[in-house]
Amino acid sequence: MKTFNVAIAGLGNIGLEVYKNLIKNKKNIFNKTGFKINISHISAKNPKKNRGYLIPKKLWVNNPLALPNIKEIDIIVELIGGSDGIAKKLVFDSIKNGKHIVTANKALIAKYGDLLAELAEKKSVNLLFEASVGGGIPIIQSIKQGLIANKIKHVYGILNGTTNFILSEMEKKESSFQEILKIAQNKGYAESNPHADISGADVASKISILSSICFGCKIINKKFLVEGISNIDLLDIQCAKNLGYRIKLLAISEIIGNKIKQRVHPALIPLDLDIANINGVTNAVVVDGDPIGRTIYEGAGAGKGPTSSSIISDIASIMVGNDDFSFGLSPSAKKNYKLFNFNKHISKYYLRFLVNDKPGVLSIITSNLAKNKISIQNLIQNPDKNKLSNVMIVTHKAKEENVQKCIKVLCKNKKIFKKIVLIRVRDESKL
Amino acid sequence: MKTFNVAIAGLGNIGLEVYKNLIKNKKNIFNKTGFKINISHISAKNPKKNRGYLIPKKLWVNNPLALPNIKEIDIIVELIGGSDGIAKKLVFDSIKNGKHIVTANKALIAKYGDLLAELAEKKSVNLLFEASVGGGIPIIQSIKQGLIANKIKHVYGILNGTTNFILSEMEKKESSFQEILKIAQNKGYAESNPHADISGADVASKISILSSICFGCKIINKKFLVEGISNIDLLDIQCAKNLGYRIKLLAISEIIGNKIKQRVHPALIPLDLDIANINGVTNAVVVDGDPIGRTIYEGAGAGKGPTSSSIISDIASIMVGNDDFSFGLSPSAKKNYKLFNFNKHISKYYLRFLVNDKPGVLSIITSNLAKNKISIQNLIQNPDKNKLSNVMIVTHKAKEENVQKCIKVLCKNKKIFKKIVLIRVRDESKL
Repeated sequence: MKTFNVAIAGLGNIGLEVYKNLIKNKKNIFNKTGFKINISHISAKNPKKNRGYLIPKKLWVNNPLALPNIKEIDIIVELIGGSDGIAKKLVFDSIKNGKHIVTANKALIAKYGDLLAELAEKKSVNLLFEASVGGGIPIIQSIKQGLIANKIKHVYGILNGTTNFILSEMEKKESSFQEILKIAQNKGYAESNPHADISGADVASKISILSSICFGCKIINKKFLVEGISNIDLLDIQCAKNLGYRIKLLAISEIIGNKIKQRVHPALIPLDLDIANINGVTNAVVVDGDPIGRTIYEGAGAGKGPTSSSIISDIASIMVGNDDFSFGLSPSAKKNYKLFNFNKHISKYYLRFLVNDKPGVLSIITSNLAKNKISIQNLIQNPDKNKLSNVMIVTHKAKEENVQKCIKVLCKNKKIFKKIVLIRVRDESKL
Repeated sequence: MKTFNVAIAGLGNIGLEVYKNLIKNKKNIFNKTGFKINISHISAKNPKKNRGYLIPKKLWVNNPLALPNIKEIDIIVELIGGSDGIAKKLVFDSIKNGKHIVTANKALIAKYGDLLAELAEKKSVNLLFEASVGGGIPIIQSIKQGLIANKIKHVYGILNGTTNFILSEMEKKESSFQEILKIAQNKGYAESNPHADISGADVASKISILSSICFGCKIINKKFLVEGISNIDLLDIQCAKNLGYRIKLLAISEIIGNKIKQRVHPALIPLDLDIANINGVTNAVVVDGDPIGRTIYEGAGAGKGPTSSSIISDIASIMVGNDDFSFGLSPSAKKNYKLFNFNKHISKYYLRFLVNDKPGVLSIITSNLAKNKISIQNLIQNPDKNKLSNVMIVTHKAKEENVQKCIKVLCKNKKIFKKIVLIRVRDESKL
């Protein structure tokens, strides 16, 4: 009867929760896997911090980078974070020394996942990262194993709880982005430096990982469109709603011919769409596969409970000898897709212009749109304060490069304020 | 490099789809698992039937019960169906002879799952049945593995595509049960003998299996409440909608103390609830776990594509050496829960009485309700044809035994027609 020795590197909120739940679940895990688990080592920046939980002194290792050299460790749980630095060295060294790795580190996996997966295959160890995407939702395992017989051509979803909370609450409370961001920070839903969430960078890492698993290809982690939500005003949310839409920060990836169209941006989605009612910190992932059709997975996208659930699931997978390949297939079989040129993207667009309320402005906007072959579906003009007006437009389908060209010209016009809001519309009946 | 020999027993719609998809996916499965797959034997009632697909003659075995004795077979896919007879003998014999089993047979697993799982453990083989619940949705695997660290106390959902299609279409098309049943049969969504679906028996098997996996207990497959949808009238659907509800056939199971409250019945659920908008043949399963919180899984609940997706996923799980325990834990560790006495159930109730439109009828109904401590939240009386009236009542919370007692008395009254419609209401904010 093998006992698995597990080391935890990084003992913040999540690390501590993993520690507690592993201890609480020892018997449970034995009954479910047939194997015993033993937390053999722990390493954290500040061992002396009061964590309100007694951790035996003998478990502590001062330097996390010593863990890969400790012979009796079978599995290392990396919860230090960051795409480089200590986390990177720890994970590479651990795999090189034949240790299994479980991590929640989306930045690391999005950046070095291909390399790490190759190394893991060479060393016959597992590299698992369920907690890196969708918090507690077992989405990576479902795609790798549950949908193993499927050809997946499209995956999209809401992959960031912080921004989904902010957008939902702005609508519900009729409040500004800044006000709700503060509430989110007070509730612990947003970090004191919320840049990674707000900018879309967090979601970008997640969709890079998901694309690679869904499509069986090398990770695309650069040069694709990533837009965050800091531009979005309560006005946009309300105007969208009046037109039958809700604004969500989406991650979308699909195969177009032999290219991948992967992107992160806010979008207007129809109120009756599957995921338009996913509010608060909940995440949802929609996967279209053949022959399975559409499946949808929902759950808490973050938080110590859900994240620890995913991490322990990965640990148990390793114990039962499951999961040969980190990304669901042999690294040597991964396809090498190119990125779709997003200038060729076609959709409807929501545009908002803040303008001086003077004769001729609307004509400037509409004539420039016409010049760029962009026709108008809806137009609403509302007065703002100080003799300003907001012009909200939803276009018919138009090409990205034409829309961008048009905006570039218009934002140079003195009657129009520089900050033009552009949000893409996703309103195909079956997205 | 091991090649796995797979035999398929039963070559209807689903069996044929499994056969086709296994052949189409050979390389794919090799890349994803590192193992080769070979369909070595096939058995079906009528080998000569034109299936529109060429199957090599050498694969055919006349008697499926010969398969367990064929030495080179590793995995047998049982798609014959039925809880007893050939399917039962095939599965028991196969496991006894050290073959792995993959099956979609919910009736068999709900009836003999405990016994089979014990036998499978003794013989060190896998018995997997992802396709038996939720069609293509990888729900069993998600609970067994993805939620392995969780204590689950509540699972519920829409587990039958046929009845969900019928209820959705009755509302959409404003048609009767019988009319829509015919459409469902023409579309292939309902069988020519739809009894198992309509009566709730199909869902009963599924919730028996899910409960056992979620709660880590022996299967409860008898004496729990199972009601189907044949009682439900368009009138009920429309009345429910006016009151802010939608009627769905639900399977619900939860732990109450040391008992299991497991049941299948139609229910009025609030229109804004997660699964109120799961329409058509889609299934959805809601799982509440600690520490993960709520996760929801949606997808096609039936059909050859989704079902074959689940079956192949199980085959691949066996190939990579995954999934030790059929129900997610050692059979010897399964708890033995008793069934909750449903007479003690408390909820709101929707009741409809067809009555002679004569003075005093309403007073009889209301006084009997009062006598049984049932108070009324909503009451609507509408005339029917032929001097009849429909009285629709939503009660405040009441006890099941009181409601049943009251109905028993009322249906003996000559002014009230025998068929009294009773549908339970589930409207807790977080179900």
